[in-house]
Amino acid sequence: MDISKRRGIMYPSFEIYGGVSGFYDYGPVGSKIKRNIEQLIRNYYVIDEECLEVECPTLSPEEVWIASGHLENFTDLMTECLKCGEAYRADHLIEEYTGKSCEGMHMSQLDDLIEKDRIKCPKCGGDLDKVYNYNLMFQTFVGPGKGKESAYLRPETAQTTYLAFRRLWEIGRKKLPLGVLQIGRSFRNEISPRQGIIRLREFNQAEIQFFVEPDKKFVENFDQVSNIETRIVTKDGKEFNISLENAVKKRIIGIQMIAYFLGRSLQLFERMGIDPKSLRLRQHKDEERAFYSSDTWDIEYISKIFGRIELVGISDRTDYDLKAHMDLSKRDMTVSYEGKKFIPHVIEVAYGIDRPFYCVIESCYREEKDRVFFKFPSEIAPYRVGIFPLVRKDNLPEKAREIFELMKKKRIHAFYDQTGSIGKRYARADEIGIPECVTIDYETLEDNTVTVRNRDTKKQIRVKIDELCEFILK
Amino acid sequence: MDISKRRGIMYPSFEIYGGVSGFYDYGPVGSKIKRNIEQLIRNYYVIDEECLEVECPTLSPEEVWIASGHLENFTDLMTECLKCGEAYRADHLIEEYTGKSCEGMHMSQLDDLIEKDRIKCPKCGGDLDKVYNYNLMFQTFVGPGKGKESAYLRPETAQTTYLAFRRLWEIGRKKLPLGVLQIGRSFRNEISPRQGIIRLREFNQAEIQFFVEPDKKFVENFDQVSNIETRIVTKDGKEFNISLENAVKKRIIGIQMIAYFLGRSLQLFERMGIDPKSLRLRQHKDEERAFYSSDTWDIEYISKIFGRIELVGISDRTDYDLKAHMDLSKRDMTVSYEGKKFIPHVIEVAYGIDRPFYCVIESCYREEKDRVFFKFPSEIAPYRVGIFPLVRKDNLPEKAREIFELMKKKRIHAFYDQTGSIGKRYARADEIGIPECVTIDYETLEDNTVTVRNRDTKKQIRVKIDELCEFILK
Repeated sequence: MDISKRRGIMYPSFEIYGGVSGFYDYGPVGSKIKRNIEQLIRNYYVIDEECLEVECPTLSPEEVWIASGHLENFTDLMTECLKCGEAYRADHLIEEYTGKSCEGMHMSQLDDLIEKDRIKCPKCGGDLDKVYNYNLMFQTFVGPGKGKESAYLRPETAQTTYLAFRRLWEIGRKKLPLGVLQIGRSFRNEISPRQGIIRLREFNQAEIQFFVEPDKKFVENFDQVSNIETRIVTKDGKEFNISLENAVKKRIIGIQMIAYFLGRSLQLFERMGIDPKSLRLRQHKDEERAFYSSDTWDIEYISKIFGRIELVGISDRTDYDLKAHMDLSKRDMTVSYEGKKFIPHVIEVAYGIDRPFYCVIESCYREEKDRVFFKFPSEIAPYRVGIFPLVRKDNLPEKAREIFELMKKKRIHAFYDQTGSIGKRYARADEIGIPECVTIDYETLEDNTVTVRNRDTKKQIRVKIDELCEFILK
Repeated sequence: MDISKRRGIMYPSFEIYGGVSGFYDYGPVGSKIKRNIEQLIRNYYVIDEECLEVECPTLSPEEVWIASGHLENFTDLMTECLKCGEAYRADHLIEEYTGKSCEGMHMSQLDDLIEKDRIKCPKCGGDLDKVYNYNLMFQTFVGPGKGKESAYLRPETAQTTYLAFRRLWEIGRKKLPLGVLQIGRSFRNEISPRQGIIRLREFNQAEIQFFVEPDKKFVENFDQVSNIETRIVTKDGKEFNISLENAVKKRIIGIQMIAYFLGRSLQLFERMGIDPKSLRLRQHKDEERAFYSSDTWDIEYISKIFGRIELVGISDRTDYDLKAHMDLSKRDMTVSYEGKKFIPHVIEVAYGIDRPFYCVIESCYREEKDRVFFKFPSEIAPYRVGIFPLVRKDNLPEKAREIFELMKKKRIHAFYDQTGSIGKRYARADEIGIPECVTIDYETLEDNTVTVRNRDTKKQIRVKIDELCEFILK
């Protein structure tokens, strides 16, 4: 967190006004890493999987959330102190007091526990009020005066993709499966978000909706992931290592398409620099699964600091959402396809962006006795290369700027630094994970070569300026 | 609009629920064009101008908007019908009735005009209520229960950039000018947005804040834009053609740095495909200028449909914002720089994204007697190339898929289409502005060449498959 704040990776928002928990800024270094993560996901889904991409508003009218079920079901159980007014998530409060899990418990069960265990307000010791349902969506109103309409900030991008399904069906040339990606902000008004950037009130998502035939939840090129060996936890709590091929064969993962995108996601996370040994697949228990899903699998990262972190959730949402919007809007969502008429089912692949971002940072962090550095893969690193004149005189800065301008022209993202000793500049570059640093020295002026120092090995070699761009891009 | 909806450029959001004015979806084709526009702006400012980039939340606590002045000043004057409750923007209503401009008028002046001209509710003929101030920010509350905090969706990205100025100053190594880009969503709860995507309630911005020394509002490389000849309208209504060099010399544009970024923006808009002959610079009149600005210049596009459209506003915001946040937060915003202590001034370059997007679409639209097409520049076009097998048999689709896969590997965004006649496929490609189309025919199977058809000239040439990627990228 010290490096993160000091070097502009991420820091709490509105710090000058004391901050508001659940809101973070991406700084100059972090915003680049974040965008690289998004671009990796986008390139894979849009180019390789031939998905369409859309961008919809984050603010949507109330009907959308009535139909989707979020107005009724997207809630946490809450209790407030009758004396000081402090608000708590009831299950968390009870879990902290008793050490026992309250997962899946109903309102009255939580009321009983509060009474039985004599749980009081941790802040003032006052009595707690009855547990009640608290909706996690932020509400606002669109338009002025008496005609204003209730609207909510979306808690997921998915619904806004579903709304335009008829258009997307036409634009996608009426073929299934039809994959639609949306990358953007979503919002959840958490009761008391802790864990820094792991539980944000405003966060980033990359969600892909695959519209499929109800009885064809599989892909043809499953062999591309079938050999992946991974740790797996099933909904009845069994944990073991298995290949995706066997997980599907033994019907541990019941839907082949879910297994396929779990495998693809494992590949993507590894490319981001997340240690695959820290990842596992976990099936949601029946009582934990979201109201719209018939089967959900997460990929979790086991963090040294935060414990398990959900990076992606892959769900079979069946025809739940399209049917719900069809019922409320009275617009037809059925398609005619290969002689059949049906409402498509949805396999959803829902990535967080902020959580993978954090896990990339944690996974790539390295401490050595004389330095710390981030071992970011090149396609994730905030800059591809650092450009340093050895000293600030004798025409070396001018020569270094020349090379910097060359990089700009080639659109290679470079970081120019001429302040402090070369050692300090290497240390600064290591702290933001720049893969290669180029030093311009007196030899450069003679023979047009530069020193290229590798972040991970610290090895230095001489490279001709003419060959530098190619060398860096390789 | 027909092409836009049918081909997935842009369409109204929440259509199945009747829509809400001021909200639009970017469809599969539009989202690509939009992202290309953003990338052009980002590359220019982050790489060429060496700006930092940040991403901040769209939801911010009330203090931010008290300090910035938006809670008090970011308002429209409104009136409601006493009979039917319909709400109107008072100045627009009066202008429609009288044909006269109400710009800069105060509440009581508008009240007087409504009385004098006997203006009634256009909907039901009822009497209109007193004019009142209506804040254009969307309000919501963060957190639950009695401790919930008032917050607003940001009406501009700028404030969220200013909040972290102290951090950015450190991260940017305490040098001026310091440029900071932010691309993201902003929100304005317009009273009755018309004009489709020109006035959105949720919209996209790319705003750059240049923190500068109060007496150094100039750049060294002004010669890069000084020769640009452009149409200009000054705040006293004079309109003429002039070079940027002369505009600065004659002190028509008082701040050289503003002239520089006006020039750079003209260059950027031309690269996006916007016709420079439809652009002009316009200085804000004193009564129209935002409350935080001492001088503002817009670049306007003269649309055949919507009249004048503001694409970018460049303002001297002085030390207004940093000073305001310093006053309210009690955090120091002064810097020590080259022996002086001061609060930096801000030159802001504020692009809309949705409006340039629309102007690109309008500017690139071409009608010929047998076709319509969009003449998008390659770096703006949604796809670089279309890949078509001549017929759906004799191994041509397989060969075409091979070339499609080759494009994927090179990350060249390609569009595969094998439905309908070649003529129809060219027409479809033209409708979304794909610059080149590649046809795989029987000759291809013999000599590994393909036909490449140019969108603008309709000329066809044969290219070897081995040289195809390079040809397309060129």
